[in-house]
Amino acid sequence: MSNLHRSWVESANRAETDFPLNNLPYGMVSRPGEAPRCGVAIGDQVLDLAGLEAQGLLSFGGVLGTAGWNAFMALGPEAWQRLRAELTALLSEGAAQRETVAPHLIPLSDVALHMPFAVTEYTDFYAGRHHATNVGTMFRGAENALPPNWLHIPIGYNGRASSVVVSGTEITRPHGQLKGPQDAAPRFGPSQRFDIELEMGAIVGQPSTGPLSVDEAFANIFGYVLLNDWSARDIQAWEYQPLGPFQAKATATTISPWIVTAAALEPFRAATPAREVALLPHLQDTGPMLYDIDLQVGLAPDGGAETIIARTNYKEMYYSAAQQLAHHASSGCPMRVGDLLGSGTISGPARENRGSLLELSWGGKEPFQLDTGETRSFIADGDTLSLYGAALGEGYRIGFGPCTGRVGPARA
Amino acid sequence: MSNLHRSWVESANRAETDFPLNNLPYGMVSRPGEAPRCGVAIGDQVLDLAGLEAQGLLSFGGVLGTAGWNAFMALGPEAWQRLRAELTALLSEGAAQRETVAPHLIPLSDVALHMPFAVTEYTDFYAGRHHATNVGTMFRGAENALPPNWLHIPIGYNGRASSVVVSGTEITRPHGQLKGPQDAAPRFGPSQRFDIELEMGAIVGQPSTGPLSVDEAFANIFGYVLLNDWSARDIQAWEYQPLGPFQAKATATTISPWIVTAAALEPFRAATPAREVALLPHLQDTGPMLYDIDLQVGLAPDGGAETIIARTNYKEMYYSAAQQLAHHASSGCPMRVGDLLGSGTISGPARENRGSLLELSWGGKEPFQLDTGETRSFIADGDTLSLYGAALGEGYRIGFGPCTGRVGPARA
Repeated sequence: MSNLHRSWVESANRAETDFPLNNLPYGMVSRPGEAPRCGVAIGDQVLDLAGLEAQGLLSFGGVLGTAGWNAFMALGPEAWQRLRAELTALLSEGAAQRETVAPHLIPLSDVALHMPFAVTEYTDFYAGRHHATNVGTMFRGAENALPPNWLHIPIGYNGRASSVVVSGTEITRPHGQLKGPQDAAPRFGPSQRFDIELEMGAIVGQPSTGPLSVDEAFANIFGYVLLNDWSARDIQAWEYQPLGPFQAKATATTISPWIVTAAALEPFRAATPAREVALLPHLQDTGPMLYDIDLQVGLAPDGGAETIIARTNYKEMYYSAAQQLAHHASSGCPMRVGDLLGSGTISGPARENRGSLLELSWGGKEPFQLDTGETRSFIADGDTLSLYGAALGEGYRIGFGPCTGRVGPARA
Repeated sequence: MSNLHRSWVESANRAETDFPLNNLPYGMVSRPGEAPRCGVAIGDQVLDLAGLEAQGLLSFGGVLGTAGWNAFMALGPEAWQRLRAELTALLSEGAAQRETVAPHLIPLSDVALHMPFAVTEYTDFYAGRHHATNVGTMFRGAENALPPNWLHIPIGYNGRASSVVVSGTEITRPHGQLKGPQDAAPRFGPSQRFDIELEMGAIVGQPSTGPLSVDEAFANIFGYVLLNDWSARDIQAWEYQPLGPFQAKATATTISPWIVTAAALEPFRAATPAREVALLPHLQDTGPMLYDIDLQVGLAPDGGAETIIARTNYKEMYYSAAQQLAHHASSGCPMRVGDLLGSGTISGPARENRGSLLELSWGGKEPFQLDTGETRSFIADGDTLSLYGAALGEGYRIGFGPCTGRVGPARA
């Protein structure tokens, strides 16, 4: 773990900031009435990169003025390294260009945050062993908790890219076909078991057209976001056999607004857990490719204080994003810049580590307590659900900024 | 059924052409060394619409010069009707502008055909009752052939848009994890049960952000293509529980190169079959929204003659594309211009109506005969698989052009 890199932006040197010089996460920001532009968060400020490029302090062919980080990602790893090195130099304590750069800082409190990139396609995995075991135990019993393929394949399904929204977007409780085990027939109505899934999202930054090794896949991942895979458990229960979840997962998926780069997370690399059965060669670990990222889930009832309802860590996953991407490409499936890979729900071994309400309330059978005195099994109208994440260094943190959504009532 | 509309392009008046004046299907064409441009097929010619617009004979804001029909679709139904009406006028027998239009005709034999639109997202359904019953009988027995939800929901899953290719694109046999029921462990190797699925693809031409009625959904569908959902049955058997098909369907999906518009198919509307149980109100039929389209599958071994191995009809489907789209949007899932909806495999009641090799060979247990004397259970390297489709009018046909792919050997 490296130490804090000090910046002349004083707020970036505080231990509690999500955005020290070590982080440099990329987002899309706008001031009122202006179009979104590429920015990097530093302390309580955002640096306007389109402005810096216009002034000649950066030179990336104008891609920093485009509507999302996709065009920059497409430039490739050499450009990724160069921008990070140049921003580090421009923002370091004692930088010669301080006076030229400072006018391009905007207080974070003055900007709106937009989708940091256009999601080309979205794939969601099911690669956390604690989550898969919990859900499997609830639905199939402890003996058959893990499906037979689970220890061999990072199980995933294609999600819906059009439904991915940035933190802060209001979520409408979905309608869907519902049929309880005792019901004679299905009905169409608002989901009664609306839930979250705490995940990390990995962003593919380079295209590929054939199979990828795990190392190649790792090199193609540009960065990470927090990801909340909103899930209607009752819609899912009725629809998912035999072809998997569809409308249960199509209402929305919320991501945090800053892309934290793989480069920023490099000091926090962590290994996957010991394997019960060896993976086939094309999926085997070639080094630590998870990250040590502390994660929390908060739930705030309408107008009430927030309770942290779960705490876990990204390093609990059984498969890394690189292994997921290698599997994804194994059939020859073309991958493109801006593809988003959800990790799967990140639960840990203990009760307080569970990354979904389904697990926290054990299928609704054991409602859990909020600090306000209320209880929950699933989401109530007006609840705000937030994910938080940070890799913790010596005296600094690589934070993601919150991934938040308030759930409004179903359409009339 | 209306009669043939006669054109001054003589080849468009022949009974055997796929592209009479009644059809006017939209594609992307290029001559050697030129960029693809919007064109409409007429007889054995293609009319260069970008050229017509440049000359002022059409006026659609320049969208006919863009790289795909997406921008035109986004203009909406009024523009869709206007272009069709203007092209009909320009190409009708006795049209005053014949001399001005004729220089913009290019022989179809001189052009390459490209993807007619950019696939925004791709969803594949499972909405043919004969297919679902056949597959269910093979895997679960005749009593449990249809899953409990099947008569209530057009079951679908999200597919992979990046894998959709235009007719003529060579397909590489995929690798994947394979594990037979008797195998102790999975292995990674080329699929031994590589297959086709005969489908129609519906193209969403208007965006939506909330639930859609079936009528609204019908109005949002711009047109149709033939669609071959290449499927690795052995990869699917091992991977698909519990979250559905993933790499089994990610190698490629081939579509025919011409978008046949809903307007052209209007005289061929057909009703869904009688329903065993009533659909919930939001999915109920409000009129005939399938089409009477004859469909065939051809298989030609490497260097050998083609055998027509199946004949069926799109009107065999249990759910229309409008019902599928209404279901797709029911959770609030945003739909976008260029979304592609695969119908699901279109089989009919008889053995010769089966739209997949899995069904034709009954899971590989009953290999079928080709005219060359060879037999097949699944696809052999070098086989060319082709789908053909046409709605048959009085003395004319609304054809789709072939949807073809040759399967090459797996990567070394």
